[in-house]
Amino acid sequence: MGVNSNRVEHLACPETTLRIHAELVAMPPLQIHNVCLPPEQTTFHKLKHRLTEIFFPDDPLYRFKNQTWFRKFILALQFFFPVFQWGSEYNVSLLRSDVISGLTIASLAIPQGISYAKLANLPAIVGLYSSFVPPLIYAILGSSRHLGVGPVSIASLVMGSILSEEISPNEDPITYLQLAFTATFFAGVFQASLGLLRLGFIIDFLSKATLVGFMAGAAVIVSLQQLKGLLGIVHFTSKMEIVPVISSVLKQTDEWSWQTIVMGSGFLLFLLTTRHISIRKPKLFWVSAAAPLTSVILSTLLVFLLKSKTKEIPIIGRLPKGLNPPSLNMLCFSGPHLAVAIKTGIITGILSLTEGIAVGRTFAALKNYQVDGNKEMMAIGLMNMAGSCSSCYVTTGSFSRSAVNYNAGAQTAVSNIVMASAVLVTLLFLMPLFYYTPTVILAAIIITAVIGLIDYQAAYKLWKVDKLDFVACLCSFLGVLFISVPTGLAIAVGVSVFKILLHVTRPNTMVLGNIRGTQIYQNLIRYRDASRVPSFLILAVESPIYFANSTYLQERILRWVREEEEWIKANNGSTLKCVILDMTAVTAIDTSGIDTICEIRKMLEKRSLQLVLANPVGSVTEKLDHSGILQSFKLNGLYLSVGEAVAHISSLWKAQP
Amino acid sequence: MGVNSNRVEHLACPETTLRIHAELVAMPPLQIHNVCLPPEQTTFHKLKHRLTEIFFPDDPLYRFKNQTWFRKFILALQFFFPVFQWGSEYNVSLLRSDVISGLTIASLAIPQGISYAKLANLPAIVGLYSSFVPPLIYAILGSSRHLGVGPVSIASLVMGSILSEEISPNEDPITYLQLAFTATFFAGVFQASLGLLRLGFIIDFLSKATLVGFMAGAAVIVSLQQLKGLLGIVHFTSKMEIVPVISSVLKQTDEWSWQTIVMGSGFLLFLLTTRHISIRKPKLFWVSAAAPLTSVILSTLLVFLLKSKTKEIPIIGRLPKGLNPPSLNMLCFSGPHLAVAIKTGIITGILSLTEGIAVGRTFAALKNYQVDGNKEMMAIGLMNMAGSCSSCYVTTGSFSRSAVNYNAGAQTAVSNIVMASAVLVTLLFLMPLFYYTPTVILAAIIITAVIGLIDYQAAYKLWKVDKLDFVACLCSFLGVLFISVPTGLAIAVGVSVFKILLHVTRPNTMVLGNIRGTQIYQNLIRYRDASRVPSFLILAVESPIYFANSTYLQERILRWVREEEEWIKANNGSTLKCVILDMTAVTAIDTSGIDTICEIRKMLEKRSLQLVLANPVGSVTEKLDHSGILQSFKLNGLYLSVGEAVAHISSLWKAQP
Repeated sequence: MGVNSNRVEHLACPETTLRIHAELVAMPPLQIHNVCLPPEQTTFHKLKHRLTEIFFPDDPLYRFKNQTWFRKFILALQFFFPVFQWGSEYNVSLLRSDVISGLTIASLAIPQGISYAKLANLPAIVGLYSSFVPPLIYAILGSSRHLGVGPVSIASLVMGSILSEEISPNEDPITYLQLAFTATFFAGVFQASLGLLRLGFIIDFLSKATLVGFMAGAAVIVSLQQLKGLLGIVHFTSKMEIVPVISSVLKQTDEWSWQTIVMGSGFLLFLLTTRHISIRKPKLFWVSAAAPLTSVILSTLLVFLLKSKTKEIPIIGRLPKGLNPPSLNMLCFSGPHLAVAIKTGIITGILSLTEGIAVGRTFAALKNYQVDGNKEMMAIGLMNMAGSCSSCYVTTGSFSRSAVNYNAGAQTAVSNIVMASAVLVTLLFLMPLFYYTPTVILAAIIITAVIGLIDYQAAYKLWKVDKLDFVACLCSFLGVLFISVPTGLAIAVGVSVFKILLHVTRPNTMVLGNIRGTQIYQNLIRYRDASRVPSFLILAVESPIYFANSTYLQERILRWVREEEEWIKANNGSTLKCVILDMTAVTAIDTSGIDTICEIRKMLEKRSLQLVLANPVGSVTEKLDHSGILQSFKLNGLYLSVGEAVAHISSLWKAQP
Repeated sequence: MGVNSNRVEHLACPETTLRIHAELVAMPPLQIHNVCLPPEQTTFHKLKHRLTEIFFPDDPLYRFKNQTWFRKFILALQFFFPVFQWGSEYNVSLLRSDVISGLTIASLAIPQGISYAKLANLPAIVGLYSSFVPPLIYAILGSSRHLGVGPVSIASLVMGSILSEEISPNEDPITYLQLAFTATFFAGVFQASLGLLRLGFIIDFLSKATLVGFMAGAAVIVSLQQLKGLLGIVHFTSKMEIVPVISSVLKQTDEWSWQTIVMGSGFLLFLLTTRHISIRKPKLFWVSAAAPLTSVILSTLLVFLLKSKTKEIPIIGRLPKGLNPPSLNMLCFSGPHLAVAIKTGIITGILSLTEGIAVGRTFAALKNYQVDGNKEMMAIGLMNMAGSCSSCYVTTGSFSRSAVNYNAGAQTAVSNIVMASAVLVTLLFLMPLFYYTPTVILAAIIITAVIGLIDYQAAYKLWKVDKLDFVACLCSFLGVLFISVPTGLAIAVGVSVFKILLHVTRPNTMVLGNIRGTQIYQNLIRYRDASRVPSFLILAVESPIYFANSTYLQERILRWVREEEEWIKANNGSTLKCVILDMTAVTAIDTSGIDTICEIRKMLEKRSLQLVLANPVGSVTEKLDHSGILQSFKLNGLYLSVGEAVAHISSLWKAQP
């Protein structure tokens, strides 16, 4: 074993060892590289590195490196208030674009605000208040240039759903309102602290698949709920699940009003048509953007003109004129409803964050700028905290509004300020105009808005690409529809996490073969020109080796060996002598995994088989070293690549047959 | 781009394409291999394969393949009743070994049975009953040859801890006993169904790290509890946590009895010394094996002889003579305590399974035979179900007993039958002898048994090898000690799962460099002789790409690109033109991951950088194909190895500068 003894004596050294087999002149020189340990680090350094990766993966302070103090101050100002970043370069041409887009989204925001507030069982005016203060704050703090801020359907629905289970909005509207503002405050606190503590990755656990299902479920429920308005039913269930809603619709047939139905379906058809036009021709985005306001104006006029004959059609009635009243005194941090307020705050907080950040990222990617997730969370959180003190409920970046904003040519957050100004004018002077607005038109607007959330194409794609993702999607859809909104979400997150655990619990293992004329070893089943290397069994494990899969992997690897030996017996192959574990994809190992490797090695030794590890990654090598078993592998059980392992071991066999 | 256009036209074909660059005669022929899709399978086939891997990873029926019907029948008989496997080859020499080892473990089982029953707050006699029926059943059904079956300390402790919170064993002993038998029945049902449904992997989630901490915590609590017996305290807390136990000890100093203390510490010292001897010299295993029975006999004699002077020392008192009475009528499947019975059954069931299977596997590995986890679960489950109908409480394979069994030379499960027979004789004739046995001796036996569960060396090894494993261990230790046994376990499992999720949420990414003169690409930081390839940035992602990490990976990869560009600027390197993602360790991808790849590609394209994927694994290639983006990578964005990617892209650049 002279060939072997001079190999890998000091493992941490990075030099390659070139060895020429003098006794085998016919062979090309065999170059074997050592497996190195990663550079040594103290526990403190490792912990620091780990925590940095968890909390500061984007290295947010890199701009501050090597700068003067004054420059650092300016950068910090720009960091906390992005308005200083684009503010200095602002000019008239940008302003022109922003005014146009701001007015466009205002025309969408006003009817949407009133409608969504209704969805949350709140007074219509709260929806308008929420389209005034939050956009102003976001314009200063937010880093997205295209986000259209305001109330959104999902968060409104969820807030309405959870709160009305606790308190009836009709019987005790004041407490309900207090609860809504308190929940908004908690949503803001939660969002801001996620951003501050840099725990933004928590919202990543709402995977896209989950959200597709959740949104579709919520949209179906919201649409069904709107049947109340569309059919003119007065006594309706306050529940959100599909069964009570449908039974409520069918039981109250005597309350259906034909005038409401005719007007509602007419405008619904109009709104859906405009939506269709804008989808088909994106350049005509303004058709659908202007449609809600047009419908409101037309329907209000219609009811006003026919007011003697249309007593059956419910109208909005008097809305108070004037700016947002302060609501700090309405926040209550004690009492029996505090737990519900916190729960509602956290759930709506997460949902609105998810929507806001996804929308921000989408449009940022289109214009090739970056949105800092954690900063956005702080902006949205502060905006909601401020909102809760000025009679606003939960707001975030809305997809429909941001799309219109982007299409209308918005350049900076000034478009939000323009929109807020338009809402301000409305609040101050135009409120009486909404007196005769029929509530049925709000139902039609809501349905048109949420129908876009049913993304059956995305669901079909999930089915096509990843069946388990589709299951997660389906679970959240059905959970929202039949159980409840929070339970549906929890089930979907559970399924997503279960999926990760399943992949870890039952990882893929495969037999590799050599691709002729190369040093590449690949899956035998997948590559037909990969061929078995006689006397070797080369196995790749496609997962970290953890407590959750160590027993499985041990059994599975021994089964591979057994099957290989059976195959050899059936095909008169050359005896199996060596098992190579390709560890490239074993990206982590824990103590159970290390025990498993030892165990497998012992078992193979009892069958006179050698176990060899190829290309263990840095952290795995380190742990094998710390546990002391690396030493026993060092002599000839550790190689940098499968190719080198095969070459070296074969040469050893040839040297001493 | 003529070189490129004839490449990868039909991706599913496995032939390699050999291309010779006629225009670049100086270069060696460049051989580029196609990335192949795995062989096509229907969804049904994939599902079947997946389910087979989940439920039948060990291919349990492989022995039945290609056999005659008669042979299959025999094999099935042997499969379900392993006794038929070794029974036919049984002979006198095996019997001799089994009788010796059986009698040895009986001498351990009798005092342990009485002690552990006390630990579970059950009558002492139940401990003996539990050492009679279950070993007989295991001998027929079990597949381990060395497992010594009977009550164990952990399961006894947990059962006593949970049940006595519900019902006081002193005030209502009958209901307590009913509850214990019902819990045992549920434990058996749970264990057997885990085996039957092949869900054995659930117990893998109790990682070794968790168990080390849990066992140590339980041992500390049990030992402290025994202070009641050792100090002779009469009024003692029934709680299990450390704080009430210690305060109970310190508050009742007036109840301390010096006679009890002297006798207790004397025998504890004796037992610990014998234990120490057996650990130092494994050949003298019988010293510690015989010590408990010796202590019982000596202490009983002592109390009997000094009975007039030792009234202060509590004794066991009268134990009923006779065999296990049936207890089927004591199982109650209704009433207010059912939920507690089920909960206790599941927790003790899991814990005793974990111990039994770990012990079985340990000794099977020593003698090089296999223990089938799922079959063992069924055997242990059926044994507990039968036990619950014959006045036994939860039993499993005990580590101390199995070790003695193995060391005493047990060859088959017959040693369990011999032990059961010895217990039978005891039950029938020797019960009056235990009348004067002092309870303090039971406390000493329990302490000696559980002290071995505090494995500080294992904990130190965890600390050395894997800090997060150590944290899991510490959490379960402290949780058991200060909160409660089930909560401690739940926390530990939570930490273990969190560890997996953390690895997925923040995976490692690294820059690869080429090792001179090879096709090997390795971590630049780890291998000092790996060097950057000019104009390329080669990144390896060490994890599946999931919803939970897709945002992080996107940001991290863009940061690598930014840092690389900064490095190039600072070092006057050649401009970055191409980013290669080494996908070898990306063992899975979901729809969010696919979107991320597209997103990264778009962002890099905007910076005029090419994105190339190297060596995507089978399932990832398949999903990329189904989602349609594989097509766009096919032309020159997909390579079988990093080496081929670098060679081919460089050659293209040279061909058209």
